[in-house]
Amino acid sequence: MKTSSEKIARMAELEIDLAQLEDYLALLTEEIEASVEKEPGVLILHAVSVKDAPEKIRILEVYANRQAYEAHIQTPHFLKYKTLTAGMVRSLNLVDVDPIALSTK
Amino acid sequence: MKTSSEKIARMAELEIDLAQLEDYLALLTEEIEASVEKEPGVLILHAVSVKDAPEKIRILEVYANRQAYEAHIQTPHFLKYKTLTAGMVRSLNLVDVDPIALSTK
Repeated sequence: MKTSSEKIARMAELEIDLAQLEDYLALLTEEIEASVEKEPGVLILHAVSVKDAPEKIRILEVYANRQAYEAHIQTPHFLKYKTLTAGMVRSLNLVDVDPIALSTK
Repeated sequence: MKTSSEKIARMAELEIDLAQLEDYLALLTEEIEASVEKEPGVLILHAVSVKDAPEKIRILEVYANRQAYEAHIQTPHFLKYKTLTAGMVRSLNLVDVDPIALSTK
């Protein structure tokens, strides 16, 4: 089993105001791309929406370690996302998870 | 927004018999590694377990297209996993999803 106790992994489950979904998705995509490109410790940010319920978003987040996560939530691109989407997010549930196997082509 | 209508994505939510969890995780890891290594159309298989409830597993699956998925479920490594874990899986919930952004380091 490939795991690393150092890694921080989480599944975020969000419900977005349907009227603002398009704006939310643009901000989320921008934030994800900036984070993975600019931050060495942001390993995976995978966002999907439930088919037939596109306002239900799930994001798998994997960080190299605790410091990488703490640094991430202080970056300008994260703070921009967090501030501008505050009025769009109806609910947010954070589930701490442990990686079992993370294979990507 | 980076999406591809061709891609097939899914979130599998499983609950495993706790007494068989170690065996299950070994089979799952083997299956994931074989699939991503051997099958060009298996793009992402990310498995995590809920912290403090390790019998609750979530797997994000992304395939290049429908044919890739159909081919995947006929492979010897998938059939081995499916057969040997049948008695270990207490529940399986499959949620079809649409990719929003899939960024990996």
